[in-house]
Amino acid sequence: MPQDRLDELIALLGPSRRGAYRIAQYAILAAGLAAMAVMTVPGVSPTVGTWTTVVLWCCLGFFAGELLVKSWPSDKSARNYLFTGAGFIDLLAVLPIPLALLIGVPKETAWLLASLWLLKLAPAVPGLALLGRVIEQEARPLASVFVLFLFVLMFAAVALFVLEHAGQPAHFGSLPQSLWWAVTTLTTTGYGDAVPETYLGRVVAAMVMICGLGVFGLLTGILATGFASEHRRRDFVRNWDLVTSVPFLSNLDAPAIIELTHMLRRLDLAERTVVVRRGRSGDCMYFIASGEVEVRVEPQPVRLGAGSFFGEFALLDGSPRTATVMTTMPSTLLILQVADFRAFTAHHPELARAVEKEAARRRGAPDYESHAGMQPAPQLLDDERDDD
Amino acid sequence: MPQDRLDELIALLGPSRRGAYRIAQYAILAAGLAAMAVMTVPGVSPTVGTWTTVVLWCCLGFFAGELLVKSWPSDKSARNYLFTGAGFIDLLAVLPIPLALLIGVPKETAWLLASLWLLKLAPAVPGLALLGRVIEQEARPLASVFVLFLFVLMFAAVALFVLEHAGQPAHFGSLPQSLWWAVTTLTTTGYGDAVPETYLGRVVAAMVMICGLGVFGLLTGILATGFASEHRRRDFVRNWDLVTSVPFLSNLDAPAIIELTHMLRRLDLAERTVVVRRGRSGDCMYFIASGEVEVRVEPQPVRLGAGSFFGEFALLDGSPRTATVMTTMPSTLLILQVADFRAFTAHHPELARAVEKEAARRRGAPDYESHAGMQPAPQLLDDERDDD
Amino acid sequence: MPQDRLDELIALLGPSRRGAYRIAQYAILAAGLAAMAVMTVPGVSPTVGTWTTVVLWCCLGFFAGELLVKSWPSDKSARNYLFTGAGFIDLLAVLPIPLALLIGVPKETAWLLASLWLLKLAPAVPGLALLGRVIEQEARPLASVFVLFLFVLMFAAVALFVLEHAGQPAHFGSLPQSLWWAVTTLTTTGYGDAVPETYLGRVVAAMVMICGLGVFGLLTGILATGFASEHRRRDFVRNWDLVTSVPFLSNLDAPAIIELTHMLRRLDLAERTVVVRRGRSGDCMYFIASGEVEVRVEPQPVRLGAGSFFGEFALLDGSPRTATVMTTMPSTLLILQVADFRAFTAHHPELARAVEKEAARRRGAPDYESHAGMQPAPQLLDDERDDD
Amino acid sequence: MPQDRLDELIALLGPSRRGAYRIAQYAILAAGLAAMAVMTVPGVSPTVGTWTTVVLWCCLGFFAGELLVKSWPSDKSARNYLFTGAGFIDLLAVLPIPLALLIGVPKETAWLLASLWLLKLAPAVPGLALLGRVIEQEARPLASVFVLFLFVLMFAAVALFVLEHAGQPAHFGSLPQSLWWAVTTLTTTGYGDAVPETYLGRVVAAMVMICGLGVFGLLTGILATGFASEHRRRDFVRNWDLVTSVPFLSNLDAPAIIELTHMLRRLDLAERTVVVRRGRSGDCMYFIASGEVEVRVEPQPVRLGAGSFFGEFALLDGSPRTATVMTTMPSTLLILQVADFRAFTAHHPELARAVEKEAARRRGAPDYESHAGMQPAPQLLDDERDDD
Repeated sequence: MPQDRLDELIALLGPSRRGAYRIAQYAILAAGLAAMAVMTVPGVSPTVGTWTTVVLWCCLGFFAGELLVKSWPSDKSARNYLFTGAGFIDLLAVLPIPLALLIGVPKETAWLLASLWLLKLAPAVPGLALLGRVIEQEARPLASVFVLFLFVLMFAAVALFVLEHAGQPAHFGSLPQSLWWAVTTLTTTGYGDAVPETYLGRVVAAMVMICGLGVFGLLTGILATGFASEHRRRDFVRNWDLVTSVPFLSNLDAPAIIELTHMLRRLDLAERTVVVRRGRSGDCMYFIASGEVEVRVEPQPVRLGAGSFFGEFALLDGSPRTATVMTTMPSTLLILQVADFRAFTAHHPELARAVEKEAARRRGAPDYESHAGMQPAPQLLDDERDDD
Repeated sequence: MPQDRLDELIALLGPSRRGAYRIAQYAILAAGLAAMAVMTVPGVSPTVGTWTTVVLWCCLGFFAGELLVKSWPSDKSARNYLFTGAGFIDLLAVLPIPLALLIGVPKETAWLLASLWLLKLAPAVPGLALLGRVIEQEARPLASVFVLFLFVLMFAAVALFVLEHAGQPAHFGSLPQSLWWAVTTLTTTGYGDAVPETYLGRVVAAMVMICGLGVFGLLTGILATGFASEHRRRDFVRNWDLVTSVPFLSNLDAPAIIELTHMLRRLDLAERTVVVRRGRSGDCMYFIASGEVEVRVEPQPVRLGAGSFFGEFALLDGSPRTATVMTTMPSTLLILQVADFRAFTAHHPELARAVEKEAARRRGAPDYESHAGMQPAPQLLDDERDDD
Repeated sequence: MPQDRLDELIALLGPSRRGAYRIAQYAILAAGLAAMAVMTVPGVSPTVGTWTTVVLWCCLGFFAGELLVKSWPSDKSARNYLFTGAGFIDLLAVLPIPLALLIGVPKETAWLLASLWLLKLAPAVPGLALLGRVIEQEARPLASVFVLFLFVLMFAAVALFVLEHAGQPAHFGSLPQSLWWAVTTLTTTGYGDAVPETYLGRVVAAMVMICGLGVFGLLTGILATGFASEHRRRDFVRNWDLVTSVPFLSNLDAPAIIELTHMLRRLDLAERTVVVRRGRSGDCMYFIASGEVEVRVEPQPVRLGAGSFFGEFALLDGSPRTATVMTTMPSTLLILQVADFRAFTAHHPELARAVEKEAARRRGAPDYESHAGMQPAPQLLDDERDDD
Repeated sequence: MPQDRLDELIALLGPSRRGAYRIAQYAILAAGLAAMAVMTVPGVSPTVGTWTTVVLWCCLGFFAGELLVKSWPSDKSARNYLFTGAGFIDLLAVLPIPLALLIGVPKETAWLLASLWLLKLAPAVPGLALLGRVIEQEARPLASVFVLFLFVLMFAAVALFVLEHAGQPAHFGSLPQSLWWAVTTLTTTGYGDAVPETYLGRVVAAMVMICGLGVFGLLTGILATGFASEHRRRDFVRNWDLVTSVPFLSNLDAPAIIELTHMLRRLDLAERTVVVRRGRSGDCMYFIASGEVEVRVEPQPVRLGAGSFFGEFALLDGSPRTATVMTTMPSTLLILQVADFRAFTAHHPELARAVEKEAARRRGAPDYESHAGMQPAPQLLDDERDDD
């Protein structure tokens, strides 16, 4: 995973500055792209022109520096980094512009290559790999739809050329022009620069539009089907290790773990994020896969670590949240919604019993601090205030 | 739930006037927005201008009064109401316009803030929360599609700028203009104000349109997938409590209840609504979760309360409805369709047996009035008339 | 079901003329609508004008006659027919035009009411009821999407009015004009009659277009979800009675029947339709729910009636079809595809054993004519020819 | 299957030239269509005109030759080939153009028939049959949506004709013109050649656009639903025979095979394709259904044939790939993803045990060459290099 090395670099700057660094990166990217756009506007004042150039060079410098740092640490892995996907993208962001300027490409044209900087977003968006996989998985039906698209396109273009080229030589005078009309119509874009005028031409055009809806529907159907199955698979893999890392859950038998893995949703939280707020109604409970949370109870807050759970009262008796819970470090939680809790415990009452037992103990035991994985008993929270 | 307090206020006006109040609210909202639209039309006669102003002030007054009443009752909850989502929306509907007029914003511009009144629809539409949740759940793949969208947008804009800016400086003379073209094309809006004219530009444009279909398909796939799962979950939660409140059903074992909860559909009915009409064919039976219905049979109508069921003959032998059934108060019914009834009873014959036993007793027993949950025997209904 | 009475009428004309009558109805409908369209074209020759009037009056006469016949037979049911949905549509097709002409509406305008004739298609399209049910079922989320649509529409219109009305008073000079632009953009129709020209206006417009994609995606997701579940339910109900009417299948236990009902697809065939053709590869077997088929084997064809099955060799050993099978009367078949056959028999080997036993008997037994439900043994078919 | 005979012909040219022949076919097809398009452009130089004619005749000659060869071998099957779907398409590609030229159709028009060549893509795209089947399966709901479409179209056209024909006789002067507007609007194509200008006309138009979204959504929902179920069925059939041909898997009981068949994905690979690369992370294992792979290990590569599996370490302990694996001949692999492996083995631990046993043996046994179906033990791979 090329992303790991990027994270490693950012981690050097300090654990809590990761998000800040990411935002700075995006801001620099946005500034660079904006400057590139401004540069192409004819008639900007020389001052603005100078500033856009400065901004562009600064961005380029930043990306070059980033690349240098990333590929520096140890010479062995450095060579590797440049050959990973992320490294190649970083290289693509830095090299082409100076090269183009060197071989004499005009400044305005050379800087258009800054649009390649946008590729730097790709590794930060994990879903792109998922999308790529869906497209790869569904390649055959997608190819079929594309061939269907080509059929309709070609026959529509030929038909309109035959019907309209006498009346509108400017718009349907050749097959390429007619194809252009067909593609704008079949995708339902409809620029309106070329519009059939004969009765028969309009009937064909209407059929093309309806085919356009159909092609669109098929495409959507294929992508939706593929996306749903791939998405489910991916979440399963991501959640599996988390589920088995919670001792409370890993005692379940294998089919139960499978079922639970499909139900749980992962939630990655930064530190000091409020998870549940006292007094709000709740429809889910939380298992802590990693990290730590602080339960704000009187007389003093309680900390729950990995393997604990909280928020179960809302599931058991529908009561509102009895305490505000906040993360103390970057944490990963697993959310079990009430619908899934009930569906799951119907088949696996052992989980319900275990949760209930723990909940009963928490309600009755004021000395909950001595036990991991507990939520404070509600009676202790009477005079606690919502600190929002 | 902020909606509860709104309901409480309306309930003060009388139980059956809730719907009327709601309709009045919508009418006032529509009148206000229409007046706002008319005000902006240049050249309206002074009379119309005066009237629109009057209507707008009346609407504002109504909303202000509503806010006042809602936040009045007890000072403690009043402060709370203003800090809920609905209270904030109500505040947003009342305050900005007078403030804008006070600080000297021209009348025509200030009243445009009346468009904020539309937000008052939000709490009345429970599905919006569901949609928000889908978007939150699917944030990662949606972000991926958005980045994909940005990629195509940027590369299309750069390509068209390079290819077309010499030939059409008015439409592709700068990158921002080219981006505008790209966004109208990629979303298949296709205004037609800027259209590529070079061969290569049109080939790129055709690819952008096809990408537009693909982006659209992915977006739909993600939203459809997320929506389906979130919708199912929500219905489950809503139905669960209802199912377990029907004694007849709550005796089933937990997995059966889960299964049934997924099958039943909730139906909220106002009072005096006809549920089934005698002689019509039927494909479902009804469980009464709350409220009461009247079965119109001879010699006199029978009332069934919460926990009863009716309409089972249609499921058992496909016969038409033997009596008209009407609610006597606002009721919540659970509908079990014939397909689901058969699928369910195949695995859980005990429900079928219980329903059959009750049905047999109803058919044979003319003294059904003495039993809760019964439907009159069909032979009693011979001379009953459909009173529609 | 109003459709039943229509069928009854057509059945009077003879059993095999039902299809012909239906086609004639559609032809008359199409001719009437075409004549209506021609009538509105300015500058048609008087001859054509006369002919269109004649065609229109003929169509009206036909529909009036149809209505008369349908509501004639017995005075009791006649009154009923006019009050059914189909009767109301028939009335709507016949009455308004003469009434409009009587009260002095110009001829061209009065005949536009002939567009109501199109409603006569509604009862013939059973899926419309299904669509109506999906929309009713998903009313809440659809309302949410509609409110979302209104929000975006209103805020986009107000924003564009503020940004553009100074520069383009002709297109954004009032809020209604701006709303018109917003609706064409948000639905991605994009006429291009009003196009924002300021930078900020174009940024807002781009966001509106993207919201348009989103609204569209949500709408599709809701309808797709609702449609899938409603469609499955409906097929189940339609297939259930057929499955239980096949003795061979009705011996299965209830869960197996449920499972099979979900798998089987219904096929309604006219008489003398070829079901399978000898020598073709096959991927499904057929159960005869009603009707009769003829298996073209030597020395003489065999007829199989309701309750029989055929085409099982293709499922058992993947061999091509061993004989051509043709219906001898309108028949209803249930198709079991190979994928479903394997999935089903994995859990219910008794069906596979029964089919295999019968197949083995057919292969080995030349005297298959004496048994119902058999397919001729392949060795008998050696010199039979494909009579296509 | 007509495709089989095409494959047979190509196989005559040598096993590895199949792909090359396919590419050549596509190139000739593309060249022919491009020449046809160029021919219609007015004002091309005579030289270009000559060349396009030459290219077109060459393409025609190639297709004629292909047809001749295909229908040559044995006179019995030759007659059959011309009557298959593929044969008919081949005939359609060759005959019409000379015939048209013979009967005196102008050259430019006659060559437009070359667009029929595109049909030759159809047999090469297996998914088209699937799409056809979805449309056949969903014919009833699709017809319903189409009728709905017609309703909206007709009423919108009549409404706009009434509202706009006085003001815009050029665009809404007749019902056909109004229908043209309606179809471009309802499909959200929106050419913008005819735009309503009255207030009421625009309100109707807005409703038509929203209906357009709805029609589109329903269409997509139907196609998505149908496509998903048909796709799943088809994959099942294709994978079933492969799964049962792997001895390791065919020992499982029937329900387990069904389950596994739904999980496995087929992968057809050309010879000398890298399947997994050493050091990469892996999320699936592979079963060899047919063909052979070479595992690049020291001291010398190992070959695994049909029935073997590899890549299981990644599933068992999440370790990166321990060796590069490459096909030595065209092979068909079955992919089992980690999510499915875990879900499957939860219910069928016997597969996990068998895989684990084999994996343990491979890790411990350096003499793995003597056993089929083994992957080299990782310790042997220490000094092996990734040969990419």
